[in-house]
Amino acid sequence: SITANHTDHGSIFADLTPKEYQAIRDYMWSQKDLRISHSPTAKPSENFLFLIDLQLPKKRDALQYLDHHAQKPQRKATVVVFFGEFSHLKEYEVGPLPGPLHHRDVTKERYKMDALPFAARTVTIGEYVEIFTFLHLKVFQKLETELRESFGYIPNKSELNPFEGMPRGLKPGDRKTWISFFRDESGMYIHPVGFEVLINHENKNSSNWTLDKLLYNGVYFDTIERFKQSYEKGTVKKIVFKKIPNYASLKPRRKPTGVSPQQSYLQGKRFSVKNNQVIYMDWSFAFGLSSLTGMRVFDVRFRGERIAYEISVQEAMSVYGSNTPGMILTKFLDSSIGIGRFAHELVRGVDCPQVATYVDVYRYIDTNATQRFRNAICVFEYDVGRPLRRHFSDFFHNSYGGMANSALYFRTITAIGNYDYIWDFIFYQSGSVEARVHATGYISSSFKIDGSLRYGHQVAHNVLGNIHTHFVNFKVDLDILGVNNNFLTKDMAYEEVDLPWTSERKAKVPYLVENQLKTELQAALTHARSPRYLHVASNQTNRWGHHRSYRLQVTSFAGDHLPESEPEEKSMSWARYKVAITKYKDEEPTSSSLYGQNYMWDSVVDFSKYIGDDESIQNEDLVAWVTAGFLHIPHAEDIPNTVTVGNGGGVLLRPHNYFDEDPSIHSPDGVYFLPG
Amino acid sequence: SITANHTDHGSIFADLTPKEYQAIRDYMWSQKDLRISHSPTAKPSENFLFLIDLQLPKKRDALQYLDHHAQKPQRKATVVVFFGEFSHLKEYEVGPLPGPLHHRDVTKERYKMDALPFAARTVTIGEYVEIFTFLHLKVFQKLETELRESFGYIPNKSELNPFEGMPRGLKPGDRKTWISFFRDESGMYIHPVGFEVLINHENKNSSNWTLDKLLYNGVYFDTIERFKQSYEKGTVKKIVFKKIPNYASLKPRRKPTGVSPQQSYLQGKRFSVKNNQVIYMDWSFAFGLSSLTGMRVFDVRFRGERIAYEISVQEAMSVYGSNTPGMILTKFLDSSIGIGRFAHELVRGVDCPQVATYVDVYRYIDTNATQRFRNAICVFEYDVGRPLRRHFSDFFHNSYGGMANSALYFRTITAIGNYDYIWDFIFYQSGSVEARVHATGYISSSFKIDGSLRYGHQVAHNVLGNIHTHFVNFKVDLDILGVNNNFLTKDMAYEEVDLPWTSERKAKVPYLVENQLKTELQAALTHARSPRYLHVASNQTNRWGHHRSYRLQVTSFAGDHLPESEPEEKSMSWARYKVAITKYKDEEPTSSSLYGQNYMWDSVVDFSKYIGDDESIQNEDLVAWVTAGFLHIPHAEDIPNTVTVGNGGGVLLRPHNYFDEDPSIHSPDGVYFLPG
Ligand SMILES: [Ca+2]
Ligand SMILES: [Ca+2]
Ligand SMILES: [Ca+2]
Ligand SMILES: [Ca+2]
Ligand SMILES: [Cu+2]
Ligand SMILES: [Cu+2]
Repeated sequence: SITANHTDHGSIFADLTPKEYQAIRDYMWSQKDLRISHSPTAKPSENFLFLIDLQLPKKRDALQYLDHHAQKPQRKATVVVFFGEFSHLKEYEVGPLPGPLHHRDVTKERYKMDALPFAARTVTIGEYVEIFTFLHLKVFQKLETELRESFGYIPNKSELNPFEGMPRGLKPGDRKTWISFFRDESGMYIHPVGFEVLINHENKNSSNWTLDKLLYNGVYFDTIERFKQSYEKGTVKKIVFKKIPNYASLKPRRKPTGVSPQQSYLQGKRFSVKNNQVIYMDWSFAFGLSSLTGMRVFDVRFRGERIAYEISVQEAMSVYGSNTPGMILTKFLDSSIGIGRFAHELVRGVDCPQVATYVDVYRYIDTNATQRFRNAICVFEYDVGRPLRRHFSDFFHNSYGGMANSALYFRTITAIGNYDYIWDFIFYQSGSVEARVHATGYISSSFKIDGSLRYGHQVAHNVLGNIHTHFVNFKVDLDILGVNNNFLTKDMAYEEVDLPWTSERKAKVPYLVENQLKTELQAALTHARSPRYLHVASNQTNRWGHHRSYRLQVTSFAGDHLPESEPEEKSMSWARYKVAITKYKDEEPTSSSLYGQNYMWDSVVDFSKYIGDDESIQNEDLVAWVTAGFLHIPHAEDIPNTVTVGNGGGVLLRPHNYFDEDPSIHSPDGVYFLPG
Repeated sequence: SITANHTDHGSIFADLTPKEYQAIRDYMWSQKDLRISHSPTAKPSENFLFLIDLQLPKKRDALQYLDHHAQKPQRKATVVVFFGEFSHLKEYEVGPLPGPLHHRDVTKERYKMDALPFAARTVTIGEYVEIFTFLHLKVFQKLETELRESFGYIPNKSELNPFEGMPRGLKPGDRKTWISFFRDESGMYIHPVGFEVLINHENKNSSNWTLDKLLYNGVYFDTIERFKQSYEKGTVKKIVFKKIPNYASLKPRRKPTGVSPQQSYLQGKRFSVKNNQVIYMDWSFAFGLSSLTGMRVFDVRFRGERIAYEISVQEAMSVYGSNTPGMILTKFLDSSIGIGRFAHELVRGVDCPQVATYVDVYRYIDTNATQRFRNAICVFEYDVGRPLRRHFSDFFHNSYGGMANSALYFRTITAIGNYDYIWDFIFYQSGSVEARVHATGYISSSFKIDGSLRYGHQVAHNVLGNIHTHFVNFKVDLDILGVNNNFLTKDMAYEEVDLPWTSERKAKVPYLVENQLKTELQAALTHARSPRYLHVASNQTNRWGHHRSYRLQVTSFAGDHLPESEPEEKSMSWARYKVAITKYKDEEPTSSSLYGQNYMWDSVVDFSKYIGDDESIQNEDLVAWVTAGFLHIPHAEDIPNTVTVGNGGGVLLRPHNYFDEDPSIHSPDGVYFLPG
């Protein structure tokens, strides 16, 4: 195993510790005027401390500390409180840790309003408890016969599980949720039963909630009573329950033998993880896991030189097509529920190699105590199975030089309901870093009715796999030899040239087209139109006189983004662009927000405003916001689970004239010999 | 290790054996009227047996044999003879093996002409011997002083190595080659010296060859004498030789330690290679290596059902930009030199895992005897390091199901001069097959002169890395439940719909757009315009009523294809299309040909003609011709070698409603448990 020279530098990016979460929570609870409930399932009408998460230091302060031996930035937390009592939401900055603590309302500073709209809040576990009670009393109890006959519903024995459509309505302030029901099987997401209800849970007092609509076998009803009448009279076509084997089960159909190939370290680990810092060969970085946005790394250095200040997951979004109400409107914005929140324990030998290093994670979200998630991050070195480089010569010189491609993987997997996203940051010995996501888990599905096949394929008995898009967004804050960078593009074109040695003919020849994009709007590159090479570059040049840069190479099979004319689009405007470049601002930390999903129509964070002021990006601190995705037309092979092969995207950050030669030539993994 | 039920079926696709090559050669040599030279370095004026390669059976005969117990198709060879004496080229079919042998001139049948133009032939080793002699006598001996002073040239001690530009001229019949010179170092390709000569070697008698032009430090000269005069007078700016360290060397700069991660089989190999047949889990296929086109697999089956009749490499092409003559025109078509020909021994632990199975290969090309290439193919199982699928549920059911992604790799690496292409066919347990190529090795470069930077970046002292494209073509002959298939496309669009439960608003919703493309021209999809999902489909449907199909998912970062107005373009017209579908014909076996490179302007194989007749592709045997590539703007990190990370492309063939569910659910690698 290696002995690495860890530093304490990464600690300014470290997630809060259990002790710190508790200190913040206790401090907030002790603020009598805030009247925060201590219950993990506080009602919507109560004041609830929804989230405690690390407040990242201001970048300037962090850089002063990292690069100029300035004082360590104070450690602070962001605290989100849902004030049921006052019908609004607020964010606080609480710190400095370890104390004495103070709190400051930062809502206005961050969002230009005194408080955030109450309807914008995430549905808490407390609210779900009330929704389940509502469903029990207002739906299940009243429809026992109908649900038993149709779907085999037996209270406490064979339940129906709810799955929510989103957004919850059509305009700001709405909180009207279509809930579809699924058989209570492992893998329920592909067991829809053809029954959906629309609940209005806008009022903070659940006794005022209403059941606004029902859908049964494709037919809408205004009330329970009308449905019951129709069912009794037989005017609605009945669904007749039939027990079927669980095709959604992930139980292997053959006896597992567990003898697939395994990768091992011959002489111990060549990387080191200490606190939240990783050191691997020429690489070092700090890491963290935001409960909302997920995995992130900071102060990413190669040979001691910072390449990126931050690389982080920002958002995972999907837009669905359907003719049933639970899915017609559905557009999921996962960071509003919390992406990092669902980073669970990783399974050795499947999710990550047996020999990986596993890291525990602590979170405080939607509860009243810190939660520990064992082994939620894994770090491992892996030989990707294809040489990083090689050349064999059989012409003038017989020789062979090559090198296996061993790279460091940093991984979390977030299972948000049906879908599992596998997030990888990969650090190559050639100086490249890759951010990758692959999708697996269950598709979302609907009960098949007339006209359904316009929105997908049938994938099981009565089950429609709905067409949908996947879009993910990464924040890539490259700092190439400092923060003052330019955004350059390179591409090719053909030109007709004279041939200097003959007038017999002309020839069309490729040449290099270089440009600098100078403002944010110029540098907002859509999926359809983008130069082929995109570079964040320093003014400094390498040995050969070229601007030292990192290139962003995006792999994406994205579908069409939601038309901008749709009011929901504002909450996901980052997805318009494959790559958009902004001038760095502490006030623009994320492309999306916790308040996107339930207030899509007037989202408090609208990425397009970051670039709308069209600021200069010449010689500025630049941030690249990268979107990758894929169109998903579900097919039978998505049952039981979508496979990762072909279902992913990401961005590769590659040195391009950053060095004077390929740095991997200095790796200890190089191989060279003269044959014979 | 597994015991697999191998069959003899693959043998009809097996490369010729040493015995067979010899039988064919001896037979051809014994045809007195053909007057074939026995010399490995026959002169262009002699008759030379350039190539012996397996003649693939007609598909109909092969299928009758494979599927209907018909007689085994006769085993035959294709033989290419360069007739110096008659100034033309011919192809023969020779067989049946093992004999008695007969030969038949198939030139007309294949190319609609009695004989192929003499100028279309590949430059043989014999011709190279004469070129080297010519260079020695007409250039090096006459310029000893100038070359010593400028480039450190010392006969037999410090030579200059030639590198040819292609095509060799401007019109059919030309054989005028610009040769650039490079320092005699390991990795010469990035050591250009600023000296180039134009040789006319059209005449089959080398005594009639001429030196038509010289280029020294960016200045053209008509004759050796004029250059000498100018050099003496000092009217041309002299290059002064300076010894420099070899930056092109692949020798590791640090002591190799050899401790990178290794993958191993815990309980032996789970695949079996016997003769030219591979069996792995549910997969089986036959394989071969054409000296010209390279790696190929046949009769690819999953659970006994044929998915593809053939998947094969067809061509690797590059178009360069430059302002120096050796590269201005340069467009490489590798199959004209032979791609498979350069599949050399693979290095254990770098090119393929230590534990791979290695297969020897025998070839007969451009020589007078069979050559053996040890370990030129490797086959291995590899865990790609990311689960094939997984789901963790923490909602209604707590359970975990997942599976590591272990797949079978079939690999060759072809080092054609400067570049090394790593070719992979990958067989996944989910029923997908992937064809992948990655580029590594040395870039091509030119000596930097005024104006060079319009065509690339400087990558070393006086060295320009020239901008270029990479395009590779694969033949993908899917047979989905038999040969009669359709070509379907699927994509998404948005439509505005009423919301059935409210009149408050309408919404734009994604829906599924399905089409059948019915003719070859309709199904010729350019890189810019293609529906997102492309399917070769059977008329038969799966359990859910959908056409059983395989989807082609192309990964490509291709640059711009050469404008069609250029006369050379005809030889590479396959590169216009990301995917083009043709009706299968035995007479259209390849998208390119041996005669492309040296007769580009009137290429005997022009792929666009395959689709030009715009045949119906409804319910026909379809072949997909897939092009992937990338634009390469060389940068300092291409020195010494281009890395594979980010420099590749390929096509993934994915089951899409082919099965009724994901077949990997039946894998013995599945893992399932209930936590706690
Ligand atoms: Ca801005
Ligand atoms: Ca930056
Ligand atoms: Ca045709
Ligand atoms: Ca076919
Ligand atoms: Cu999906
Ligand atoms: Cu290249």
